[in-house]
Amino acid sequence: METGESQDAVRPRRVRLDISYDGTGFSGWARQPGLRTVQGELEAALATVLRRAGEPPQITVAGRTDVGVHATGQVAHVDLTEAQLRILNRPDRGGRVGPAGPAALARRLNGIAGLESDVRVASSEFAPSGFDARFSATWRRYEYRIADAEAAQDPRRRLHTLWHPAALDVTAMDGAARALLGLHDFATFCKPRPGATTIRELQAFSWERDVDGVLIARVQADAFCRSMVRALVGACVAVGGAKLTVGRAVELREGARRSSEFIVMPAKGLTLTEVGYPPDAELAVRAELTRSRRGLPRTQDID
Amino acid sequence: METGESQDAVRPRRVRLDISYDGTGFSGWARQPGLRTVQGELEAALATVLRRAGEPPQITVAGRTDVGVHATGQVAHVDLTEAQLRILNRPDRGGRVGPAGPAALARRLNGIAGLESDVRVASSEFAPSGFDARFSATWRRYEYRIADAEAAQDPRRRLHTLWHPAALDVTAMDGAARALLGLHDFATFCKPRPGATTIRELQAFSWERDVDGVLIARVQADAFCRSMVRALVGACVAVGGAKLTVGRAVELREGARRSSEFIVMPAKGLTLTEVGYPPDAELAVRAELTRSRRGLPRTQDID
Repeated sequence: METGESQDAVRPRRVRLDISYDGTGFSGWARQPGLRTVQGELEAALATVLRRAGEPPQITVAGRTDVGVHATGQVAHVDLTEAQLRILNRPDRGGRVGPAGPAALARRLNGIAGLESDVRVASSEFAPSGFDARFSATWRRYEYRIADAEAAQDPRRRLHTLWHPAALDVTAMDGAARALLGLHDFATFCKPRPGATTIRELQAFSWERDVDGVLIARVQADAFCRSMVRALVGACVAVGGAKLTVGRAVELREGARRSSEFIVMPAKGLTLTEVGYPPDAELAVRAELTRSRRGLPRTQDID
Repeated sequence: METGESQDAVRPRRVRLDISYDGTGFSGWARQPGLRTVQGELEAALATVLRRAGEPPQITVAGRTDVGVHATGQVAHVDLTEAQLRILNRPDRGGRVGPAGPAALARRLNGIAGLESDVRVASSEFAPSGFDARFSATWRRYEYRIADAEAAQDPRRRLHTLWHPAALDVTAMDGAARALLGLHDFATFCKPRPGATTIRELQAFSWERDVDGVLIARVQADAFCRSMVRALVGACVAVGGAKLTVGRAVELREGARRSSEFIVMPAKGLTLTEVGYPPDAELAVRAELTRSRRGLPRTQDID
């Protein structure tokens, strides 16, 4: 065995996981004793898959979604040893480690979860050098769905769509969303955490109706603090129902204090749809930068 | 009181209901003792709404969907007496019968079901003269959703989308669908019922991928016999997986006998999306024609 191969054998390889889930039956992403969480389920499945190859690895995620929040574009990583990668291939293929290695992980995890599962690993592949699902990420994108009185309220989609009894003014809501864009202190829209900054860059925020008339918000920021998307959506719903003006919404943001003029919307309408990363060459630098600049507060990334 | 008004008071008015539901939690449309069905739930809600105005009416439906089948465009009718219509208006409005009368029925039924309900009355309005939800209908349209290996398998939509582990050839499936169109004996695709005809006019049948890559079948016929849509979809899936040729699918249809060369697909992927009616002036004639021409067999209209 050459020295290079020997080193490979002790240094784990990082695998990127793309994950989607219906958050209805989960107590959020993060593992918690006695509760069914996405991380808990996936790590248990991982332990089953890798049961003959030592300590099961932990999963690191880009967006630690809150109770009831869904995801179609969640990203995570997991570090696997050569021995763990080796047992991913089916025994009937002779246990060889080939290109099927990391891709087999998604297949195996989904096999344990079952075809009807509310969590699904869409893909698993070797991560590029320097990749960290959490710290390399440059932005997160969420979607919020509201079926108001003008929209088709489709019972098939009720678990990821908020039903609003009155009609909402989508033009006004879109106007409010755009007025809130930019680099600001979003304390008005964040649950306070001691010592944590609430400065964020709101990079995109818009409202439109889809073909069924359902109001769709698309919200993108470098990172979100806890309940931030749902508070931003709540402010827009207040504007859409003529209970708040766009000017007042901006005033509230500038006040940087929690307000009773809008509500934090329920989790069920919220889905994490995409996580953005820089080009491969910048992944490691970006991760280091995020760690040093953000420290504890900016790693919250939860909604 | 004039004679005309007195007659109105004894002759019930027909109300059209547009209904949608997630079929997952229901044992189909039709009322059955001890089982949760859509008709059972709606008639129970109707009895609650009209509890102070005599015998609660029964609901007549266009498509008696099977266990687990969904609907976004179900149509039904119910006949209400003047006394029943009167109590639809809220007491705080003085109990007057106004244009809000029939529209209030949807609001009241949804109020009982609750905002999170898996069944929803999208609208309720006076039906045009001669309208019969079941016998005036000239066609029914269904959708079937399959997320194959090429598609995004979105766990949020897993209860109304079939997940298929392999990739399917949508072009071949669309070709098969079109080859099956027309007025034929569809016995190959129908659960046999003694004395019932299985001749139907398959008016539209196509396959395409939506923006998420999900395979969508759109199927329209004058009426469907039991399990017909799911058998037609099964034949196309066999073609899409290269287990059946288009020519053989047509041969099987011409054989007019059940076949083991394809399967009847699960109910979960199936949704009744629309029911078609002729212009108002033809509603009564159409209903009479359907009753006389179809007799027992052609009124099955179930899938």
